[in-house]
Amino acid sequence: MPGSLLTLLSDFGLRDGYVGVMKGVIAQVNSDLVVVDLTHQIPPHDIAAARFSLMSAYAHFPQGAVHIAVVDPGVGSTRRAIAVRIAEGVLVGPDNGLFSGVLNQSPVFAAVELANPQYWYIPQPSATFHGRDIFAPVGAYLASGVSLENLGPAIAPDSLVQLPLPTCKQTETGISGAIQAVDRFGNLITNIPGTLVTGKLWSIEIDRLRVVGAQTYSDQAVGELVALIGSHGWVEVAVNSGSAQSHLQQTRDLAGGPGNPVQVVFPSLT
Amino acid sequence: MPGSLLTLLSDFGLRDGYVGVMKGVIAQVNSDLVVVDLTHQIPPHDIAAARFSLMSAYAHFPQGAVHIAVVDPGVGSTRRAIAVRIAEGVLVGPDNGLFSGVLNQSPVFAAVELANPQYWYIPQPSATFHGRDIFAPVGAYLASGVSLENLGPAIAPDSLVQLPLPTCKQTETGISGAIQAVDRFGNLITNIPGTLVTGKLWSIEIDRLRVVGAQTYSDQAVGELVALIGSHGWVEVAVNSGSAQSHLQQTRDLAGGPGNPVQVVFPSLT
Amino acid sequence: MPGSLLTLLSDFGLRDGYVGVMKGVIAQVNSDLVVVDLTHQIPPHDIAAARFSLMSAYAHFPQGAVHIAVVDPGVGSTRRAIAVRIAEGVLVGPDNGLFSGVLNQSPVFAAVELANPQYWYIPQPSATFHGRDIFAPVGAYLASGVSLENLGPAIAPDSLVQLPLPTCKQTETGISGAIQAVDRFGNLITNIPGTLVTGKLWSIEIDRLRVVGAQTYSDQAVGELVALIGSHGWVEVAVNSGSAQSHLQQTRDLAGGPGNPVQVVFPSLT
Repeated sequence: MPGSLLTLLSDFGLRDGYVGVMKGVIAQVNSDLVVVDLTHQIPPHDIAAARFSLMSAYAHFPQGAVHIAVVDPGVGSTRRAIAVRIAEGVLVGPDNGLFSGVLNQSPVFAAVELANPQYWYIPQPSATFHGRDIFAPVGAYLASGVSLENLGPAIAPDSLVQLPLPTCKQTETGISGAIQAVDRFGNLITNIPGTLVTGKLWSIEIDRLRVVGAQTYSDQAVGELVALIGSHGWVEVAVNSGSAQSHLQQTRDLAGGPGNPVQVVFPSLT
Repeated sequence: MPGSLLTLLSDFGLRDGYVGVMKGVIAQVNSDLVVVDLTHQIPPHDIAAARFSLMSAYAHFPQGAVHIAVVDPGVGSTRRAIAVRIAEGVLVGPDNGLFSGVLNQSPVFAAVELANPQYWYIPQPSATFHGRDIFAPVGAYLASGVSLENLGPAIAPDSLVQLPLPTCKQTETGISGAIQAVDRFGNLITNIPGTLVTGKLWSIEIDRLRVVGAQTYSDQAVGELVALIGSHGWVEVAVNSGSAQSHLQQTRDLAGGPGNPVQVVFPSLT
Repeated sequence: MPGSLLTLLSDFGLRDGYVGVMKGVIAQVNSDLVVVDLTHQIPPHDIAAARFSLMSAYAHFPQGAVHIAVVDPGVGSTRRAIAVRIAEGVLVGPDNGLFSGVLNQSPVFAAVELANPQYWYIPQPSATFHGRDIFAPVGAYLASGVSLENLGPAIAPDSLVQLPLPTCKQTETGISGAIQAVDRFGNLITNIPGTLVTGKLWSIEIDRLRVVGAQTYSDQAVGELVALIGSHGWVEVAVNSGSAQSHLQQTRDLAGGPGNPVQVVFPSLT
C-alpha cells in the first residue's frame, strides 16, 4: 500500500512559485503528507536528466513512497498522464520516458492512465500545467491511500514510452559506454555499472586520456583526475576537490557532457 | 480562523541561510506548522516580481493559510510592518505594495500594524532582518491561532501602499497591456486576463510581431512562438519546448521583459 | 536531550538529488522529524563558507536541534566523522573545521567518532557520499532520541580540527579585521563583532575608502555605501537597495571577497 511520503521532481526551477503552488494543491488534499523535493533544477524540457535523477533517488525512500515527476514539454498534447506501481512505491507523471530509468531497474506491477477527473484539481485542467491540475492532486490521493485502480483505465506496461539512450556493452578490450550525467561537482557519471569493475584492476578512457580506477577522490592529489565507482553505483570520472568537467574543458577542449563516449579497459585484456 | 499552514516568499535566495533561520524561529513558536516555500529567488529588492509571484500562488493553498512575504528594501525605515486578513487567509510582511496584486483580487477584511512586541522574536528587532525578528514569529503565531487583532492597532485598508504598474485597457482594435513577468521557461506573461480572449479568435502583437492565439504549446511546432492563456490565467507568449524571451532577443533584439507593451488584436475589429 | 528537528547544510546544490536522497534516508529512520534546509548552495568544497553559515544559524533553532553539515572534500580519506554535543543541540558531520565557528561560541559538552555501523545506512558506506550513508541516518537517530554515546568512542574536544582564519584585533586606532562572508545581496560581512562598536561613533575603512557607521540601510541614499551592524551581529558594509560588492568592484576594481582586510576606526582615536 502506498505510504504517506511524496517526492517532487521537475524542471520548474525555484524562481516562479510553480513548485509552491503544487505543494498548496497537495496540502488541500492532505496537509499531513511529508513532501520532499528531489530537484526542480532539471534543465527545462530535459527528460534524460530527469530520468537519471529519479533513477538515482527512488530506491532511498521509505516503502510506498509516491514520486511525482514533471518534465513535460508535451503537456496539453496527446501524451498520456500516468501512474505506475512498482515494488518500492508509485510513479506519477507524463508518459514521455522520464520513468524509463527506474523501470529498467524495477518492474511494473500496474499502470493506469490518469483519466478520472474525480482526483484532479479542477474538472477542466489547464493546457499547460498538469503538475498542478493532475499530477499533484493524484499523487496526494495515492499517498493518502487511494488505490491506483481508481485513477483511470489500466494500460499495458510495454506501451510505456522508452527514452532512447546510449547503451553500455562489452567489447574485446573492456566495456564501451557513455557519460549519462554530470553533477554539480563536475563529476562525469557514466552508464557503466560499477558491478562490472568491482574487484578488478581497471582504467577508463575518455578522449584517449586514460584514468586509473581507484576507491575515492583522495586517492589522487588535489586537482588530479580520478576514476571510481560513485555513490549511485555507476563508474564516474572526478577530480579530487575539483571538477572533472572543467578540467577536461580546460586541458583538452572537451565538453565532457552527456553522450560523450567512454571505454573501461581491463589491463589483462590489453 | 487562520489554519496551520505557512508559506514563505522572499528575495533572500537559498545561499545564505536567512531562510533557514526564519524556519528556525517559526519552529521555536510552533514546530507542528507546515511550512511551504513559494520562492526565495525574487531578484533582490524587486517588489513587482514578489507581487506577481504571491498573486499567482495564494489562491491554491488551504483556507486560512498564512503567507509571509519579505522583499523589504525599506527595512529599518519608517515603512510599516503589517498583517492583512482576506477571505483566503492572512498576509504578513512590509507595507510596500507587494500585497497589492493579491488585494486587487481579494478584498481586505482587516489590517493591523505589527506593533505588539509580545509576538516578536526579540524585544529590540534588528534594523535589517525583520523577516527573522518580526514577520516569521508573527506569522507562526497567526498560523497557531493567535488573532490578528492582538498583533497591533488596526490600520485603514485604503492606506495600504499600492504598487504603480502598467494597466491593461480596451482599445479600438483590441486590448493594450504589458508583460508583467517572465518565468524560468522564458514565457512572457502579460497583464491581460485570459477571460478577455476566451472563446474568441485573437492574436497578440509584441514589437509589431503578431502571434496567433492557441490552446497549448504544441499547437505550434517545436521552436515556434505561440500565444495562449497560461495556467495563471493571463495571456502569455511562449515557444514550444523553448524560451520566448530568448527567441525574441535573438531574432528581434528585443529584451522582452516586464513593462514591454503588448496588444491583443481581435480579427473582427481590424 | 536532542529534539525532533534536523537541519541540513551542504555544498550539494539543489540540481542533483543528493539532498533529496539524504531526506529519503532520514525518512526511513523516522518520517516524523521536521527537516529544515539551512543551505545547500555552499560553493563546492568551501569549508569556510559552511563554517560561517552554520555559525550564523544554529542559535535560532529550538533547543536540542540536530545540525547535519556536509562539506566534505576529504570524504573516504582518514578524516573523522563526528557528532558533537553543545548546549543548544548536536552537530553531525566531517571533522574538517566546519564546526569551528559554532564551537568558538558554544563549548563542547561531548564529542564522538561515528564508528558504530549500527546507525549507518549501509554496513559498508560508499567512499564518496557519507552524507547519505553516515551523517543523515546518524542525525536522524540522534533527533529521534538515540544517545550520542551510542554512536562511537568519545574523542577529546581539543582534538577537533580548527579552521585557520583571519583574526580580529585591537589596534592603536581601532580594530583590524577582514571580510568573512559576502551574502546574496552583496553585503560584506566582516569578522568584527558588532558589540565592539555599539554605542560609539565609528567608521570602517576598506581599500582606504571610509564608510561611516549607521543604523540601517536607508540611513544612506539609495545606491550609497553604508556601514552597520548586521542581523548576524557582525559589522558589515552594504549599499542601500544595492550590492556593496558590485559597488566596490565597479568603482574601485576591488574584489571585496572573504579575506579582504578592513579596519574599524573610532574618531576619538585618530
